[in-house]
Amino acid sequence: METPVKPDHTAATTVNFSEPRKFTTTLRSDLKETFFPDDPFSRFRGEEKPLLRLKKGVEYFVPIFEWLPKYNLRLFRFDLIAGLTITSLAIPQGISYAKLANVPPIIGLYSSFVPPLIYSVFGDSKHIAVGTVAACSLLIAETIGKVVSPVTDPTLYLHLVFTTAFVTGIFQTLLGFLRLGVLVDFLSHSTITGFMGGTATIICLQQLKGFLGMKHFTTKTNAVSVVHAIVHYRHEWRWESALVGVIFLIFLQFTRYLKQKKPKLFWVSAMAPMVVVIVGCVFAYLIHGTEHGIQTVGELKKGINPLSIEYLNFDSRYLPAVMKAGIITGFVALAEGIAIGRSFAIMNNLQVDGNKEMIAFGFMNIIGSFTSCYLTTGPFSKTAVNYNAGAKTAMSNIIMAVFMALTLRFLAPLFSHTPLVALSAIIMSAMLGLINYDEAIHLFKVDKFDFFICMAGFFGVVFVSMDVGLMLSVGLGVLRALLYVARPASCKLGKIQNSMLYRDTEQYPGTTTVPGILVLQLGSPIYFANCNYIRERILRWIREEQANSSSEGNVIEHVLLDLTGVTTIDVTGIETLVDVRRSLDAKGIKMAIVNPRLKVMEKFIQSHFIDKIGKENFHLSVEEAVDACQFSLHKSKQNGDVSAEQPIVVDGSVI
Amino acid sequence: METPVKPDHTAATTVNFSEPRKFTTTLRSDLKETFFPDDPFSRFRGEEKPLLRLKKGVEYFVPIFEWLPKYNLRLFRFDLIAGLTITSLAIPQGISYAKLANVPPIIGLYSSFVPPLIYSVFGDSKHIAVGTVAACSLLIAETIGKVVSPVTDPTLYLHLVFTTAFVTGIFQTLLGFLRLGVLVDFLSHSTITGFMGGTATIICLQQLKGFLGMKHFTTKTNAVSVVHAIVHYRHEWRWESALVGVIFLIFLQFTRYLKQKKPKLFWVSAMAPMVVVIVGCVFAYLIHGTEHGIQTVGELKKGINPLSIEYLNFDSRYLPAVMKAGIITGFVALAEGIAIGRSFAIMNNLQVDGNKEMIAFGFMNIIGSFTSCYLTTGPFSKTAVNYNAGAKTAMSNIIMAVFMALTLRFLAPLFSHTPLVALSAIIMSAMLGLINYDEAIHLFKVDKFDFFICMAGFFGVVFVSMDVGLMLSVGLGVLRALLYVARPASCKLGKIQNSMLYRDTEQYPGTTTVPGILVLQLGSPIYFANCNYIRERILRWIREEQANSSSEGNVIEHVLLDLTGVTTIDVTGIETLVDVRRSLDAKGIKMAIVNPRLKVMEKFIQSHFIDKIGKENFHLSVEEAVDACQFSLHKSKQNGDVSAEQPIVVDGSVI
Repeated sequence: METPVKPDHTAATTVNFSEPRKFTTTLRSDLKETFFPDDPFSRFRGEEKPLLRLKKGVEYFVPIFEWLPKYNLRLFRFDLIAGLTITSLAIPQGISYAKLANVPPIIGLYSSFVPPLIYSVFGDSKHIAVGTVAACSLLIAETIGKVVSPVTDPTLYLHLVFTTAFVTGIFQTLLGFLRLGVLVDFLSHSTITGFMGGTATIICLQQLKGFLGMKHFTTKTNAVSVVHAIVHYRHEWRWESALVGVIFLIFLQFTRYLKQKKPKLFWVSAMAPMVVVIVGCVFAYLIHGTEHGIQTVGELKKGINPLSIEYLNFDSRYLPAVMKAGIITGFVALAEGIAIGRSFAIMNNLQVDGNKEMIAFGFMNIIGSFTSCYLTTGPFSKTAVNYNAGAKTAMSNIIMAVFMALTLRFLAPLFSHTPLVALSAIIMSAMLGLINYDEAIHLFKVDKFDFFICMAGFFGVVFVSMDVGLMLSVGLGVLRALLYVARPASCKLGKIQNSMLYRDTEQYPGTTTVPGILVLQLGSPIYFANCNYIRERILRWIREEQANSSSEGNVIEHVLLDLTGVTTIDVTGIETLVDVRRSLDAKGIKMAIVNPRLKVMEKFIQSHFIDKIGKENFHLSVEEAVDACQFSLHKSKQNGDVSAEQPIVVDGSVI
Repeated sequence: METPVKPDHTAATTVNFSEPRKFTTTLRSDLKETFFPDDPFSRFRGEEKPLLRLKKGVEYFVPIFEWLPKYNLRLFRFDLIAGLTITSLAIPQGISYAKLANVPPIIGLYSSFVPPLIYSVFGDSKHIAVGTVAACSLLIAETIGKVVSPVTDPTLYLHLVFTTAFVTGIFQTLLGFLRLGVLVDFLSHSTITGFMGGTATIICLQQLKGFLGMKHFTTKTNAVSVVHAIVHYRHEWRWESALVGVIFLIFLQFTRYLKQKKPKLFWVSAMAPMVVVIVGCVFAYLIHGTEHGIQTVGELKKGINPLSIEYLNFDSRYLPAVMKAGIITGFVALAEGIAIGRSFAIMNNLQVDGNKEMIAFGFMNIIGSFTSCYLTTGPFSKTAVNYNAGAKTAMSNIIMAVFMALTLRFLAPLFSHTPLVALSAIIMSAMLGLINYDEAIHLFKVDKFDFFICMAGFFGVVFVSMDVGLMLSVGLGVLRALLYVARPASCKLGKIQNSMLYRDTEQYPGTTTVPGILVLQLGSPIYFANCNYIRERILRWIREEQANSSSEGNVIEHVLLDLTGVTTIDVTGIETLVDVRRSLDAKGIKMAIVNPRLKVMEKFIQSHFIDKIGKENFHLSVEEAVDACQFSLHKSKQNGDVSAEQPIVVDGSVI
């Protein structure tokens, strides 16, 4: 598209000094970029008919209205198979993770009935399969277990777990409505890799309890406590249990290996946990396992979710722990659910609205907490299975919910014979897949700081506790983000031979510089947190340059600051540039600004910086600026200009 | 200087794909930029003779060795006058601020004897005058007053104040040694303006107690409590006191006004507080003020600082409050001292090493806490007076210390007659100068967010408490810093008429674009906290562009990402670019990278991103990239290339 050309040529070949945009314009643009970068309303804002607009609006906020009318039998066939596959995974995982959270196993099954239904109504992703997750289950057990014992007061403990899910739901919904999806972005990939790896490690260690058929154990999650407990209660070890466990684990790992070798056989590994549970049940039932040290899950009542809304407990004694557990698990669950939803969406060139997803997750947890469910999200493993099994829409979640309801209504008591060791093998196998060595090695190779963030998360979780590990890793990530802006890169530019391009002299060693002119490129916003650094750095560039060039008899007369990479500037930043100019003036060096961007130019105009520096010292490109300086150098030499000819005192202790 | 030119021409006209620098090289460079941006050791690293090097090293770490040998009588004449002037200010201010901190007035005088001596040995600034400050005095009173009452247990309270100074000293020294000066940079100019304004407001309100000669008052500092106390104890109001106070205040404000009109008369306003104290003493002595409701300071013992090292109290009951007070006041004191030192240094083209200053302030407070002093720093007002009075070196601090010692030894008891109302007038007059309306208006005009940060500090201090106000304001500043990196600016580039420059189309409305080619400029680092935003934003640019151009029949075939402004990238950022490429591929759009900077290129190579994208898709300049794309467009049209001719489906719900 050919934009119409202004007749005024001068406006296009010099820096644009026109009046800044209005405050309301910039504010609206800033708010939009901050909270609505994906422009979610564009799809129905353009619609002119009010009714159609309303319809599109409802479809946007409640996605099921969008996809259900277009639903057909062909899609249903895919979703049915996927739904069945994830149900067969949901049952053993539900029971296992409920044990991890120290709640009755039936709660794990309940949690795969109501929440998937809610998600299928409000959720945006077509691939997410809803369910409980190991990391959050353990986090809840760790945090709530500190204030109420799940052994001596299981009822109160359970009610607090429901309340935690409620807090999580409210928190997630709020984040979504306030469009604070950006907060979740601060859980970086490195943090998640480290945290997940650490969590998987401690969960694996914990499963040794089930593997060895032990009855006593520690409630702490860190590696030292767990290993100590295992050694301390070594008289409780049962070889029968361990043998069964190892066999199950080998089987599960083999199916995983098979999936890796032949991705089409993914369903073998998806079904494997169910097979382990069934074989385990039959085996335990036949040999009367409990008499041989093989403990079983125990009583599982028939019937679908009872209401639990009246059990929500906001007692001020427990509220701090509940709030903490709710918010931290809410964060982790969002990070996991949104990340996985996004990855599959990207693979299929779809768009997932993170903030809308948060609201869907929030609703799902609020209503879950009313109906005897604990925290659910879109787990990595289950979602991957759902996707591989061919799920096309959120219908697969509805199908899972229906099958789960049938299971709860008719089959639940059968699972009471499941041996704990089978659950431990299932958990351990799942966790071994979450320890991502390759990713850690990749991080080490590409970015040492990312690797450090990852390791801080890993070791924090393994040796201290899950929340400490997570916060440590996130804290380091934020620190890095702050350092990026506190220490922005700057470089010296030189001209590339046979071209008119000015590039970093370190990156392109063949560049040439003009004697007497120093071109510096600054990057990142210039503002309070980095302005001292920038001032020091510019003065150091000049000092270093003078130290190099003094032997050759040249002194710097012009410093050009290329602001192409400077996205914005604040009041302190502008004052810094004024200070720099004053310092340079005192040394007889002239300063010029090259290519300030829109926002920077607006601030320059508003703060009258332009008037202080002079319009003639603003240039549109480095080349033009260098030409102007060369002209002035030439002129000053011809005229024998005193100020330019005067030798400038280079004194390291003064500059 | 003409850099030698490589014979290899190809290396200079394409992007440099050579191997990344070694990890140790980049680490050393990063650490240097983070902790030693001012390259402090350069001055003696170059020295070859070991003895001379040692001498220069000692001179660097203990600046008095540098300036004292060169000291002469001419400099001494200047410093003597400045020293006398700041002594005359130090006595009334010392007594006043000690009252503000609820410690005996003599402590304020002690604090102007030992700390200036220490600073003159280790301090780097030639202009700072050491002394106590109002804001920190009140902050200490507020924080320590919460755990121990200065009225019922004054001895313990005083010991905790010494301990606070000790904690401050250790904290400041540590920050300096760890080269964490960057932390102080997070106290932005806006924060300091707001915090100082708020503090000045509540201190003025508090002085109404002294003005009105009241005996009862609140210990809280917020405006509501103070106004309530004033009204509540209105039966204690004494008109005599108020009358004297108003007269003093008018006199002090008049001298300030005089200074503003005729800057040469600065000494009048510098001496005025001393005049008020002397006149007040004489007046109170003559009329027996206490009988007329004019309270006086009371007993002041002769003699210089007694040792207080044995009084430092680390009782665990009080330690949290002491730590909190020590660290917060340490921060504020550093921010004030370093900022003022730096401003005068810049004015005189000198350099002040922030980290070294921290160590000097730290030593001064540690030794101060051993010798009955409380927190000292380089206050704005006193330093300005010192500078205006002609101080040339830190000798003026030594002279002040000598005069202060003489005062303590011989004259202290005279000041016991000082009326409290005189002190209140002195404090109030000083505080009125700290409420910087002009700066707030300037902030409002130039940057609304800076103004908001400032106002948050102001109202937080006035209506809640000093620490809350400070943290709120700093928190908003950090949030903004994070938003800068979480929402980096991006823009669409177009070619400026009659040139080969590509610039922001919004900033330069006359630019033209090539049909089918979209050039986007990204800014700031690309990394975990902004990669989702960047992905969404690039896709939105394309969507918007296609919505505009579809009516004209052009579809986008090339997207060029100009990374000139991208200073660095992390692992998540690289993955994002891979994702973007995949999304574009699916739409039949080709992606190319323009001018990646050194660090970014290194990461690209390490992560094998180059291999994924293909070297042919890297360009050194936008112009070159556009030429390459135009060539490919031309070719595809000529050859009737199917993939390029195929109309691309533009579907808002899918993109």
